[in-house]
Amino acid sequence: MEASAPRGNTPSKPPRKHYRVVVDSPLKIGVGLLGCGIVGSSVVRLLDDRRDEIIKRTGLDLEIVSIGVRSVARDRHLDIDPSILTSDAQSVIDNSAVDVIVEVIGGIEPARCLVLDALAAGKPVVTANKELVANHGAELFAAADAAGVDLLFEAAVAGGIPLMRPMRKSLIGESVTRVMGIVNGTTNYILTKMSLEGAGYADALSEAQRLGYAERDPTADVEGFDAGAKAAILATTAFGAHVVAGDVYHEGISTITRVDIDFADRLGYVIKLLAIAERVSSSDENSTVEVAVRVHPTMVPKDHPLASVNDSFNAVFIEGEAVGELMFYGRGAGGMVTASAVLGDLIDAASHRAAGVAGTPLGDLPRALVRPIDDIASAFYIHLEVIDRPGVLATVASIFGDHGVSIRSMEQEGLGDQARIVFITHAGLERDVQSTLSMLRDLDSVRSVLSVLRVIGDDEV
Amino acid sequence: MEASAPRGNTPSKPPRKHYRVVVDSPLKIGVGLLGCGIVGSSVVRLLDDRRDEIIKRTGLDLEIVSIGVRSVARDRHLDIDPSILTSDAQSVIDNSAVDVIVEVIGGIEPARCLVLDALAAGKPVVTANKELVANHGAELFAAADAAGVDLLFEAAVAGGIPLMRPMRKSLIGESVTRVMGIVNGTTNYILTKMSLEGAGYADALSEAQRLGYAERDPTADVEGFDAGAKAAILATTAFGAHVVAGDVYHEGISTITRVDIDFADRLGYVIKLLAIAERVSSSDENSTVEVAVRVHPTMVPKDHPLASVNDSFNAVFIEGEAVGELMFYGRGAGGMVTASAVLGDLIDAASHRAAGVAGTPLGDLPRALVRPIDDIASAFYIHLEVIDRPGVLATVASIFGDHGVSIRSMEQEGLGDQARIVFITHAGLERDVQSTLSMLRDLDSVRSVLSVLRVIGDDEV
Repeated sequence: MEASAPRGNTPSKPPRKHYRVVVDSPLKIGVGLLGCGIVGSSVVRLLDDRRDEIIKRTGLDLEIVSIGVRSVARDRHLDIDPSILTSDAQSVIDNSAVDVIVEVIGGIEPARCLVLDALAAGKPVVTANKELVANHGAELFAAADAAGVDLLFEAAVAGGIPLMRPMRKSLIGESVTRVMGIVNGTTNYILTKMSLEGAGYADALSEAQRLGYAERDPTADVEGFDAGAKAAILATTAFGAHVVAGDVYHEGISTITRVDIDFADRLGYVIKLLAIAERVSSSDENSTVEVAVRVHPTMVPKDHPLASVNDSFNAVFIEGEAVGELMFYGRGAGGMVTASAVLGDLIDAASHRAAGVAGTPLGDLPRALVRPIDDIASAFYIHLEVIDRPGVLATVASIFGDHGVSIRSMEQEGLGDQARIVFITHAGLERDVQSTLSMLRDLDSVRSVLSVLRVIGDDEV
Repeated sequence: MEASAPRGNTPSKPPRKHYRVVVDSPLKIGVGLLGCGIVGSSVVRLLDDRRDEIIKRTGLDLEIVSIGVRSVARDRHLDIDPSILTSDAQSVIDNSAVDVIVEVIGGIEPARCLVLDALAAGKPVVTANKELVANHGAELFAAADAAGVDLLFEAAVAGGIPLMRPMRKSLIGESVTRVMGIVNGTTNYILTKMSLEGAGYADALSEAQRLGYAERDPTADVEGFDAGAKAAILATTAFGAHVVAGDVYHEGISTITRVDIDFADRLGYVIKLLAIAERVSSSDENSTVEVAVRVHPTMVPKDHPLASVNDSFNAVFIEGEAVGELMFYGRGAGGMVTASAVLGDLIDAASHRAAGVAGTPLGDLPRALVRPIDDIASAFYIHLEVIDRPGVLATVASIFGDHGVSIRSMEQEGLGDQARIVFITHAGLERDVQSTLSMLRDLDSVRSVLSVLRVIGDDEV
């Protein structure tokens, strides 16, 4: 071919850094573990179990050399040298034999300070801490970037499902338009129980608590806080602009009733708690990325891939301009499941460490512009109880019309002197739908607005 | 904590190689494209479309500087400088402005020689070529390893689905026990048409051809050759031992009838063409990895996540000891879909190039021991037409028993003077089931063995 135009900053062939897989003399990588609860113990067990195979495959010998715990005395039923346990977490970071830090303490502090210290000390960090990443991601990413080391958090969203790495690496060139996830196993278990076994909400919740899927105080799960934090991380990763947990509008599932579940079924839907993150303005026009991020129970058409994600399974559905539709499915929680994700990150961080490079840094991301829920359009399912007399339907329908909310389908059912009307609307702005609902509630002929759910499907936009 | 034991070969803190994302002066990476058909043109278009955004996110400016094509004259409707087209593919590799090679020619030669030349010249290669990787993977991986550069092939299996990177990176520490994939969109489209719309095989195939999902000569797809090549790549990646396309037992879907589809439906199954790769001996005991790899139409329980993967979609279901069940779902073919996967690899290879490192090399994998199909156990669905007279069922059942094939369920239906019997067996060795079938075929009372399909589900092992 013709000589190409001269290019000023063509990289000269760089000196090749390439460590070879040499099983006979593997490269030791010291791992410092912060926290040794369910996930931490599972990391210890899994690493113990897989250590030889990892040496064979990667030439890296990952050895846990220090574990920071609250109580050194507690019996963890682990086959470890007790002398590596310490209640001084800082000493794990300072230990010169520790090359990579795994943070599985959870919560904001002391995890945040410890992770920042580790990064500042030039040690890569693997964390499973969604709360930390969702609330302090910007600070942590900047610290990792400044130090030139990895900060990996595969386990923070959707547990064992490889999701962060595919999103950060495989899809980095893709124009992702929307991410929708079932990212909370507890609520998915409850909704599945209600949907497939006819359980009521309270019974399904009790069963989830009995099985250990739900906490004694289930608020964080059932009210959508947990999913909201994960939605923030998904949005940040998908759109390359910071979204924090506090940005995410969220509704939970505690008001979902058997009636809703049955109506959804009749209309060809299932109800799922979805975390939805959309890019609502093109980042090409200006440098600001505008996103809409929210968590709410959603009517999902039965033939949508998310509809058949049942029990405590998680799944994340991604839409991209070139790649089309993708879905990642698997277990979102559990000690060994989470440990599996941690181990993948740990090997990655260790490989980079061995080669003397960081991975692709998330770096200095801009802050996303987050569109308020009032300005987001959705299709809605609206269930009213009305007095059964002539003219009521016309009145109700005109209120929808007055607010510019267009009705896609309607079903009316008589119940003695009252009737129930179920509407599904075309996509309308939240503010318009809420004004509609507010006027409907004021009507004498409307006994109650029994439920309001957002709907995804063909006609959602 | 206590000082840890001295460790001989602890890596000293390596000098950190960390290129920063500097949008104002991005690092140019010259891309050489080999082939410019549907996928190649899509790569040109997608890269053109995403170039600015990639600079923003990665600091890398990917520029296609040379394209090797068969005919320079052909109009490709691309917005490119015609001077970068050349019919001398070797010159693309030799071009000093080319830092990374993308091979989308397809087929074995000249792709194989060109890829080997590129690797020998120290240039990373991204390929979408399943045939090449499935037949010459060992040679290519060794060449990449020797040169210390990346050889990435995300697009070779399941098109746009990020699968190879998660398997190679996220799951490298995981003990994967089985991989089952719907990896051929053509056959999945045909089976979906038959299953959901009641089409016959011939009509469904014609429709697939009309829509461009199937080739004029559909043999490679419908007889399982394409899926077989992908199964070899999946097995190699999952189990870290070489399996080549020729190792893979395969049956196609051309003998599947409406009757099979209907029976499957009645029994709670759907029929899917699955590529199945299992690890059948633990690699812990000795260094040999034994695998069972095959492609065949399979009865999949309706509540299995693979059962609802319809139309031309692909999905790969992975079972691992720690992570449990995972599934990756998306489009398996199409120009832009494949280009999306190529672009992810290209950015990865370019980042490594910029940092002067290879990614995790697949390296010098051992050859897998491939278990012959005769020694693989499956549950079977067997559909017989028999003469309807007393004693026939007893005779038939005793033949199963004589061969150690145990029956899980049986259904008999009278059809005038003959009857149809449908058996589902427990897992039995292929050789025993085949001997059973051979004896059944010889029985006077058996009119015909209408169909034989393998079954997955609860009782498969």
